[in-house]
This record gives sequence, C-alpha cells and structure tokens, in this order.
Amino acid sequence: MLIDGKPYRTIWLDPDDPHIVRIIDQRLLPHRFEIAALESVDDAIAAIADMVVRGAPLIGATGAFGLYLAAINGEGLDQAAERLKAARPTAVNLAWAVDRMMGALAARGELSAIDCARQEAQKIVEEDTEICRMIGVHGFSLIEEISRRKGGAPVNVLTHCNAGWLACIEWGTATSPIYHAHDKGVRIHVWVDETRPRNQGASLTAFELGQHSVPHTLIVDNAGGHLMQSGQVDLVLVGTDRTTRTGDVANKIGTYLKALAAHDNGVPFYVGLPSPTIDWQARDGLIDIPIEERSGDEVSYISGLDGDAVRSVRISPQTSPAANPAFDVTPARLVTGLITERGICQASEEGLSNLFPERAG
Amino acid sequence: MLIDGKPYRTIWLDPDDPHIVRIIDQRLLPHRFEIAALESVDDAIAAIADMVVRGAPLIGATGAFGLYLAAINGEGLDQAAERLKAARPTAVNLAWAVDRMMGALAARGELSAIDCARQEAQKIVEEDTEICRMIGVHGFSLIEEISRRKGGAPVNVLTHCNAGWLACIEWGTATSPIYHAHDKGVRIHVWVDETRPRNQGASLTAFELGQHSVPHTLIVDNAGGHLMQSGQVDLVLVGTDRTTRTGDVANKIGTYLKALAAHDNGVPFYVGLPSPTIDWQARDGLIDIPIEERSGDEVSYISGLDGDAVRSVRISPQTSPAANPAFDVTPARLVTGLITERGICQASEEGLSNLFPERAG
Repeated sequence: MLIDGKPYRTIWLDPDDPHIVRIIDQRLLPHRFEIAALESVDDAIAAIADMVVRGAPLIGATGAFGLYLAAINGEGLDQAAERLKAARPTAVNLAWAVDRMMGALAARGELSAIDCARQEAQKIVEEDTEICRMIGVHGFSLIEEISRRKGGAPVNVLTHCNAGWLACIEWGTATSPIYHAHDKGVRIHVWVDETRPRNQGASLTAFELGQHSVPHTLIVDNAGGHLMQSGQVDLVLVGTDRTTRTGDVANKIGTYLKALAAHDNGVPFYVGLPSPTIDWQARDGLIDIPIEERSGDEVSYISGLDGDAVRSVRISPQTSPAANPAFDVTPARLVTGLITERGICQASEEGLSNLFPERAG
Repeated sequence: MLIDGKPYRTIWLDPDDPHIVRIIDQRLLPHRFEIAALESVDDAIAAIADMVVRGAPLIGATGAFGLYLAAINGEGLDQAAERLKAARPTAVNLAWAVDRMMGALAARGELSAIDCARQEAQKIVEEDTEICRMIGVHGFSLIEEISRRKGGAPVNVLTHCNAGWLACIEWGTATSPIYHAHDKGVRIHVWVDETRPRNQGASLTAFELGQHSVPHTLIVDNAGGHLMQSGQVDLVLVGTDRTTRTGDVANKIGTYLKALAAHDNGVPFYVGLPSPTIDWQARDGLIDIPIEERSGDEVSYISGLDGDAVRSVRISPQTSPAANPAFDVTPARLVTGLITERGICQASEEGLSNLFPERAG
C-alpha cells in the first residue's frame, strides 16, 4: 500500500543488498515513519520481542526471514529456530512459520540453506499477500453492492483495531475490501475505532488509511453504537485473532460490543478471516478460547506525541488498579458473514466446512 | 464523601468566612486535590466556564452561590443572573438554578438580598443532596439482594462515566447505591469504565471511589462486554443527562453499548435518575434528544500526568480528522429499571407516571 505516495510492504529484501531484510519500525507510528534493517537472527528476534513488528502474519514472516538471516550468517539453524519461537511464545503464527521453514530446510536436497530459506520465506510472504488480496476481492462485492444501493454515495464502514496491511504484508484482512473499493474508485469512508488500550486504530489504521488517501474519521470506541443508531454506518468490517470451526470470532477487546450494536441496528457485521486463523479444534469460543490478560499499565498510561517527543502519561489515580483483558469473543449468531480467501460464508460450521472441506474433516 | 479520610461536599460556605464559597478544583483531579475560593460573581462565572466545576447539579449550585456572591458585593442581580446563565449556555440546570434564585429574591419581602440568596442557594444544595441520598437508599436494596443471593461475596457493579458525588453535592446518582452499600458493610467492587474521550471514569470516578475506600478496578470502555459474558458483572449502574417520559436514557457516549451487553447477558441495567433530569416533553429519545457534537481534539489528544506535570499528548496522525458525539441514547427496552428519589420504576411512561403523577400530566 502507499506511504507518502510510494508503494510498500511491511517486510522485504533490500534490493541493493539481499543480505539485509527491511521492515517498518511500527513502534514509531503514526508519529514517525522509519525503516529498520535486520541483519541477523538477533535483529529479527529483537524486532519481534520489542514489537517493532506486530500482527500475526508479519510476525510469522519476520520469523521466517530470521532463519534466512541465520543461514546467511552461518548460525546454527536449530538453535536459531528455538530462539525465534521464544521471542513471542504466544504467537501461534510465529511457531508455524518457523516450523515450516525448518521443514523446508530439512527437505532442501541440493539447494543451499540460504537459497532454500530465502525462497521459503518469500513463499510465506507471497501466500499471505494472496490470501489478503482475495479477501479484498470477495469483500469488495459487499461494498460494491451497498454503493450501488446508495446510488454511489460514500459507503460508511466501521472498523475496530488494526486488521490492516501493517499487520500483514499487504492489503490487510478487514482493510483489504476497503483498499480494493478505494482503488477501484468506489466512494468509501471509514470510521476508525481508536481501540483502547493500545490504540491500534488511532495510531496504525488511521495512519495507513490516511497514507493511502482513504477518507476516514477517528472515533472513540464508545461512539460506534450511536453512529449505527443514527444510520451513519453501512457495514462493520473487523479482523480476527482466532475463529472457531463454528464461527465464533475472537478479536480485539470491544469487537463484541460493536457486533451487538450492529445486530441491534440491522447493520451487516463481517469478519475478514484468513483461513490459517480458523481454529478447527475449537467449537465454543466462550469456552475454548482463553482470553489473554495483559498489564494494567496499558490502561493506566497512554503514550502520544508532545511536541517532537513521544511521551507516556498517566490518566488515573496512582492507587487505582486496572484490569486489561485483551480480546473478546463475538458469538457466531452476531456475525453476518466471514470473508475468507475462498469466498464469503455464513459464520457456522456448515459455512466454513463448505469452503474448507479438506480441513473440516 | 471522604477525601483523605475527611468528609467533603463539592461546594460549601467557608465556615470561617461566609463571604467565601469553597469548591474543589476538578480540573486537577485525580492528580492534584486543591480547594478553590469563589469571592465574586466573576469567580463563579469563571469556575463554571473553565470547568473547575462540572456536573449538572454542581453547576446549578455554583450558579446559585454566584448570585449570593453578587448580593454580598452589591452587584446588580439582574445582570449577574444573565452573565451566570451565559457561562455555559447549554447547561439546563444552571439556567434553572439561576431563575429559581431570582424568583426567590423577587419574593423575599423583609429578608435582605444576601440572606435570601444564601438561604435559597443552601436549599438548592440540600435538595440535591437529599435526592441523591434517596437514590442511594432505593438503589441499595438492589445491591443488598444480589449480595444475599451471592452469600455475601462482593457484588460487582459496572459504571460508565462519572455520575458520582463530584458531579453533584454529595452521594452522586449512579454511585449513591454504591456508597450506601459500602458504608453499610455490604461487600462491593466497581468496574470503572475509563470513559473516552474525556476520561471522567479514569480520572473522577476512580478518584472518588478510591478516596472513599470502595474497591474498584479501572477498565477500558471496550472491556465491559467481555466481563459480562464471563459472569464478572452483577449489575450495571449509570447516570443520565436526560431521560424521556417514556424511559429512553441519554447519557455519556458508550452507555448504549453497555446496555446492549447487559441485555445480551441477562445482567440488570439500572439508571440513577434524579427526577429533575426527566424531560417530560420528550417521547422518543432517538428523535427528541439532540446529540451534542464536541471538538475532535478531545479524541485526538489525551492529557495525563508525566512526572509532576499534566501534559496533553496526540495519539493519532496530524492529518486524521476525528468526530466526537458526546452522548448516546439507550432505548427504554434495554433498561431494567430507573432508580429515582421516590423509588425504582420500570423504564416506561407508566413507570414514571406512577412515581411522578403531578408531572406526568
């Protein structure tokens, strides 16, 4: 997608020096745009652990390129793999990408470890890009239909958190239909939920939409219900961190509240769902998906720009404790549909099984 | 209520010098507790306009004491009244209190203007205190019943924004049942919604509950749905800025989302409703109650404590616009009951008419 008019991905090989992997330092967004270099597995581990990169697909890709850098530098691959996986132990995608790389390296035959690792990492990146692109192709049809019904007036989409290209390689999941619509000249406007406590909406989604020239307006997480009540939202589009085989959607905390409001106001609520995010083992989201409890400091402190410096300020009394559940589960009954790379389906076991018969088993 | 172990109201006559009205400078909370002096009608106007005081009942009381200060200083009362009302033109309670004062002054007979103004201002203050106290007496019965059902385990109450004593004179509206329960030794724990964008929950509700030693935990506005889904909320208690004769409740933006979650999870949702807040002219909250749109800067900037200084930081890209609807309307169908000073009733025209037959007409 575009930044400052120039197309970017979130991770790429330096065209002038293929020993260097380039990433965007996402900790500085939206206030500063800086590109960082990864030149060793240690660099990749630090980028993952320090959240220079975030978002499941991008973390996975960074892990994959970490092994490529280990191969270049002649480091022990087994040890590098273990250390990469430990950089964020709860990131399922990271372990998956590292294991896949190790499988490819084990079966590489004649190919050098460097070439094999580079090719496999690039394959991982291209596959994610294609999944996201196809989510956009399918989701675009929803936006196009609403646009037609509205006689070409802007389609108002509400989104929560950052399920954008910055979390992936390109396109994003929830944002992919939005970028497709925008690039095809369908008029669109996005309500961007701030997404407390970590403000991924205000900092990342607002940034990436703005850079790609997509009209958008930042709102507090509290505002979506009123906007839906007053007819100012045509479609809710969110991502997911994990979706059960029955269509229950775990996503950033607060998603469930927006789904309730959408349901109460007859606003369609869709989820951009790359199939690797489906948990085929889980049947009941409220029982089978554990909710991560993060530090209360993420609630009590907020960081932002003051002059040229990014500062963290405390918003509550020193003596007030804070709780910070990071995700919630939106029951399938509140989800209008799931937008996967193979098409759109109902949020149900039947819907997902029809699209992915080989996984549904 | 208690601050630092000492009982306070939000406004009072200085016991050593009745020419001085004392207030808490609420702009500095929760980071600094300072008492300010009002010695003239200009001081009162500035305190209202600069939001040193906030909350409908407290603004009204400050307007009333402003006229008392005008009387002391021999200023023209008519002009003082007009200037006070203009300090916050949308504050219905301010105009009401000032008009009531002028009515009392016009009919004061033998009484001096100073004595009349002091007595009437104190009456306004005592009446608000009694309304809030009675909301607590009635609301306490709900908490007591849940406590009994839970065998004395802490009753978990979720509240949004600050409908606390800091917005009133004492007790508060939504918080009054909480303080009554706490003072009677019924175990209670309050989930305090941060309440973006102005963070009245994080700064004021957390402060006043903490100072009164009520166990509480700060959460982001996004978290309440998950807490209700997982059985961690027994009761939702909120205030209201305006309630229609049919029981539709306008309150701080985001209240509607909590009401939806409460309804979806069978959690009782009650509103502390002082009867002066009932708009007997309004029938349909979604049509009859205009929603104030405030500055987007309240969304894009957050202020908090950095070291010893209170700073404002920007959380979003400079180029991203923000929208800021300040209230939403919770339809009566989602409200379990209204807690008024005369008792608890259904959120319906019948419920309110039975309690206030002289107003229902």
